[in-house]
Order: sequence, then C-alpha cells, then structure tokens
Amino acid sequence: MRTVEWVDGYVRMIDQRLIPWELAFVDLRTFQEVADAITNMTVRGAPAIGASAAFGMALAGVQSRAATYEALIADLEAAGAILKASRPTAVNLAWGVDRMLRRVKTSSDATPDQIRTVLLQESERIADEDVAINQQLGAYGAELIRNGDTVLHHCNTGGLATVDYGTALGVIRAAHEQGKKFHVLLDETRPRLQGSRLSAWELEQLGVSYDIIPDTAAGFYMARGEIKLVVLGADRIAANGDFANKIGTYQVAILAKEHGIPFYSAAPISTVDLALASGADIPIEERDKAEVLAPYGLALVPPTFRARNPAFDVTPSRYLSGIITEKGIIRPPFEAGLRRAVLGG
Amino acid sequence: MRTVEWVDGYVRMIDQRLIPWELAFVDLRTFQEVADAITNMTVRGAPAIGASAAFGMALAGVQSRAATYEALIADLEAAGAILKASRPTAVNLAWGVDRMLRRVKTSSDATPDQIRTVLLQESERIADEDVAINQQLGAYGAELIRNGDTVLHHCNTGGLATVDYGTALGVIRAAHEQGKKFHVLLDETRPRLQGSRLSAWELEQLGVSYDIIPDTAAGFYMARGEIKLVVLGADRIAANGDFANKIGTYQVAILAKEHGIPFYSAAPISTVDLALASGADIPIEERDKAEVLAPYGLALVPPTFRARNPAFDVTPSRYLSGIITEKGIIRPPFEAGLRRAVLGG
Repeated sequence: MRTVEWVDGYVRMIDQRLIPWELAFVDLRTFQEVADAITNMTVRGAPAIGASAAFGMALAGVQSRAATYEALIADLEAAGAILKASRPTAVNLAWGVDRMLRRVKTSSDATPDQIRTVLLQESERIADEDVAINQQLGAYGAELIRNGDTVLHHCNTGGLATVDYGTALGVIRAAHEQGKKFHVLLDETRPRLQGSRLSAWELEQLGVSYDIIPDTAAGFYMARGEIKLVVLGADRIAANGDFANKIGTYQVAILAKEHGIPFYSAAPISTVDLALASGADIPIEERDKAEVLAPYGLALVPPTFRARNPAFDVTPSRYLSGIITEKGIIRPPFEAGLRRAVLGG
Repeated sequence: MRTVEWVDGYVRMIDQRLIPWELAFVDLRTFQEVADAITNMTVRGAPAIGASAAFGMALAGVQSRAATYEALIADLEAAGAILKASRPTAVNLAWGVDRMLRRVKTSSDATPDQIRTVLLQESERIADEDVAINQQLGAYGAELIRNGDTVLHHCNTGGLATVDYGTALGVIRAAHEQGKKFHVLLDETRPRLQGSRLSAWELEQLGVSYDIIPDTAAGFYMARGEIKLVVLGADRIAANGDFANKIGTYQVAILAKEHGIPFYSAAPISTVDLALASGADIPIEERDKAEVLAPYGLALVPPTFRARNPAFDVTPSRYLSGIITEKGIIRPPFEAGLRRAVLGG
C-alpha cells in the first residue's frame, strides 16, 4: 500500500487526516488539487510531499493543452510554482518539482505527448526510488538499535510520511524485521498529533511494541534512564547539518544532549539543501491556530482564545549524533559528509 | 470568587473539568466526596487541594457521630488517611490534613461540638491565609517581570490552582496590576491542558496579553530570544530545592538552562517538605491513559492504543534560579534558605 500513487490517469492518496479512524483514499485529477492536498495536509511528510509534487507535475502535463514543447514547458513551470508554494519548509517539495522539470528540459526534440509520457515515468521512478531509499536507509539505521532498547520518536516518519516504508520509522521497522526486541516511545506531537494518530497506527500494524507519551513526558523518561536512542526525521537539512523538522524536534535534541542520549535524524539525501548555508535561512511555516485550539474539529478550548502555531523548528547540527541516509550514516563534521553524499566523490 | 469554600454546612467547589466552557459549582457534603473530587480533578492545583483537604476534614467532623473527644479524633484520623490518599504527589494535601489534626489535638478538654467549630474555623483560616500568601508571593515575584518581557508559564497556577489569586500566575497578575506591559506564553500542558483550558481562561478574564503554544514550541520561542523569564508552580519541594511539578516542567527547566533564561518556581512555604532530602523520594502519580488518548472525552485516537501518562516530574534544584514564596525569593543554596523559611530564624 502506497501513500501516494498514480492510478489510471489520476493521483490516489491516503487521506491522512482520517487516520487512525479510517483508511480512505482521495483521487486527485488536477495539479491544483494536489497542491491543495499538500497545503491541507491530506498528505504530509517531506518525502511523501516530494513524490506528490512529482505526480502533480505529471498531472499538469496531462492537463495542459499545449501543442508545442515550449508551451508545455511554460505550463509545467507555472504548475511547478504553484506546487512549490503549497508548503514552505520541506525542501523535498521543490526537489520533486525541479527534478521533473530538469528531466523534460533535456528533451527539447520530444513531442508534447512524449513529454507527458516522460513525466509519468519520472514520477513513478521517484516514487519507486523513495521506497528503495527508505529500505536502504532503514538497514543502515537499524544497526543503532539494540535488543532491550527503548527508542524515542517524534512526529510521523513512517510509510505515511513517505511513499512507503518510512525514514526514522523505517529504521525502527528494519530493526523489527531483523527480529530485534525493543520498545518505542512515540511523542504525541502536538498540535496535529502525528505521533499518536499516524505513528501509533503504523506500529500497531507492524506489531512493534510502543507507548504514546505526551510531548511533556520525554524528559521524564530520559531522566529515568529508559531512553537509549532518539531517531526522528528531517524536512530540510542545510549544508552545515542544521535541520528543520516538526515543531518539538529542537526540544528533544536539547533533552537528548542533557541526558547524553544519541540523537539521530533519518532522511533521504534529497532532503539536503546545499543552497542553504545554515538552518537560520530555512523558512518556518506558521499554521492556523485552530490546529491548536480544535485539532481535527475537536474543540479543546473556545475558538476565541489566542494561540501560536509554528509548524517546524530548526535544530543546530551540534545536537546531532548523525544523519541516517541511504548512503550510510553521516557523522560530524557534517559539512563535508553532506557535500560528499549529495555531490558524490 | 473562590475555587473552594465553605457554604452553610457543605463545601462548594468550582468544577474545573468544565472550564473554559462553563463556570459551574459542585456541592460536597461528605469528606469522601471531597476525596473523590481531588482524585478526579474536579479540584486540582497543590494549594487548592490543600485547602480542599482542610474543608474535607471539617466535613468529617460534621459527619462523625462521635460523642467523645477520643472517638471524634479517631474518626478524623480515618478521614485524614482517606483524604491524603486521594492524590500522591502534592504535599499540600497532607499538610492541610495534618494542620487540621494538629489544631484539634491540642484541645483535649473540648467537647465534640466545640471541636467541630474549631475545625471549621481552622479550614476557613487556611483558605483565607492561602489568598493572603499568594498576594504576598505575587508582590515579591512581580519584581522579576519587566516591561516588554515575554514570560513562559506551564500548567495552571492561577486562582483556580489555589483558593484565589494564584502562585506563578499570581506573580503575573501582580505585575499586571502594577501596570506593567508584558506578554505571556502559556504552555498548553498536555495531557490535561491546564494551560490552554484554565490559565488562558484566567488571563482572558484578567486582560493579560497571552498566547497558548503547544508544549512542543517552548524551545522554538526560546531560540528566537522571545522568552525572558520562566515562572511556574510546584507541588512538592524537597529540602534541597528539588521540586515536583506538572509533567513537562523538567523539560522547560532544561530548555531554560540551555538558553540562559531565568527559571523560577512560585509556591507557598507549605509546599516545602523538609522530610524529603531530595526529589528522588517524591512519589509520582501515573494517571489513566484515557487522559492522553481522549482528553475530556474528545477521542483523539482509538481507546485501544497504548499510552503512558505520568502526571508529574521532578526538577533538580540546580536548574532553579529561585523559589518565589510569601517570605521572599529564596535563592541558592536552597537547603539553608528553605530551612530558614520553614522553621524561621
């Protein structure tokens, strides 16, 4: 089962807003619908929105009535700009759009219909690669988990955050598939509860031992010596290793440092943005306060109350023990390791 | 308006489970009902449950059919044991019960009816003193807040957590009443949302500028340099200054240290338990996982999902800048300062 896939001329996604209550799918027939699905978080998770953006570009190709190569490229560039604007923080979104554009810009002798075919093939390749990357990344990261460990995880980085398998939860899944016995504490991850709604739902299905904890309790379990490892995802990694991830990540990093607990981020290399020197330049999305006051329509407090809702934070690389990627675990100094992983050599 | 008070032979409490939606009162006619109200958190907040326990003892006196002094004391001791067992962490509960018992044990020549009168007077004295203590404590603490500051607060420590006025929120209230202009960030405080439900409701009424933030966002606002001061409460303070408080407090303490932000606890001296050498000996209550999965009946995830729900954590005194009490701000070394504040001299 894939979080997002191409089906007979349209894009099918799991509606993640309904998990864990219902596994339902939405069918999207235009790139605008894909952009909306990213904005309203029908689909979320950096790798999943990267693949969704690629499928959105394939839809844009089908939608375009352009009769010439140049006209089609112009339509695709317009669609790409809209898709890129659907959420600001994760770089995978821009990465997916740009990879699709790069692919067709090398084919200037192709007909529009040939380009449409290339777009579809490339989007499916991106999706397939994502699964393979996660399995590889999971295999590298699983070495960090020992029998008897308790591992802390934040947000959701599982199959739902990717096309399939997951990044940090993929590491957990790989260790579980290797037969290791360990326990996972899932930060609930307010405000949108990706830990208790999505990650718990995934670990229930995988049969991995877990407990949801309020975000306020991570330090409590660290102080008791129960947590041996922290592994979570990344939405954008700057050239120096600073990374943006779900709000609360930065706090967990500080807590891990204070308790001497290894702290790892797991992400595909496509999450690295060498154009950003440091995390200070990563744009942070602020979302509607209703997500805090009334998550999923469940009114915790009156809608007139005031609230702030930053969706991400930036964790400086000095807190990171390593970055788990499909090319292995990158360790400090991150600048050189990330550059080598992205550019090769 | 008082959180708990004596009215014509019974105890009236605000039902805090209904705030912020409704201001409703419950009338309790037996000490067993008071114990239940403490357990199910109709009333919560260390000073408020201390006063509630005292009123519960007054009710126990009324309920008892004892015809002799000795029989009445035996009934009161039995009631006190039940009240003390209603929640394990806050010391104010035992303090309230023990103060009531001490008061009547010095009156062995009194009739049972005279004892009943003494009990009622003492419980009302405890309640009145609580308000006066909080106002004094607030005046000392308000000096820490400067114009233009943003102050971070965790849980609820306002009028609702006390008989009236509040401890840490009393500090904020006092600064506001002095005309200072500042902003308060209220940690939502999962799982029971005392920050967004109770503290926000109180600051709305006081007209203090505030925003609720998810517990995951405190570090984000610290990293941006917005938070200048942390002030929160305490449920039990050990002889060395370690203190138990609402789950999440320990994390906020670590975050404050990492960012060089002053971190204060505000509590009446009755919160100090010199019998405990350090925080390691403070019992930590674990509550029903339903508070995490379905707070106030609002199902966030299926009831079959697994969760842990520790209600408090312990913050070592090394993280504390000071303890704001009605006798002034106690600063390190805490051992000597706390002993002097409790025992005098």
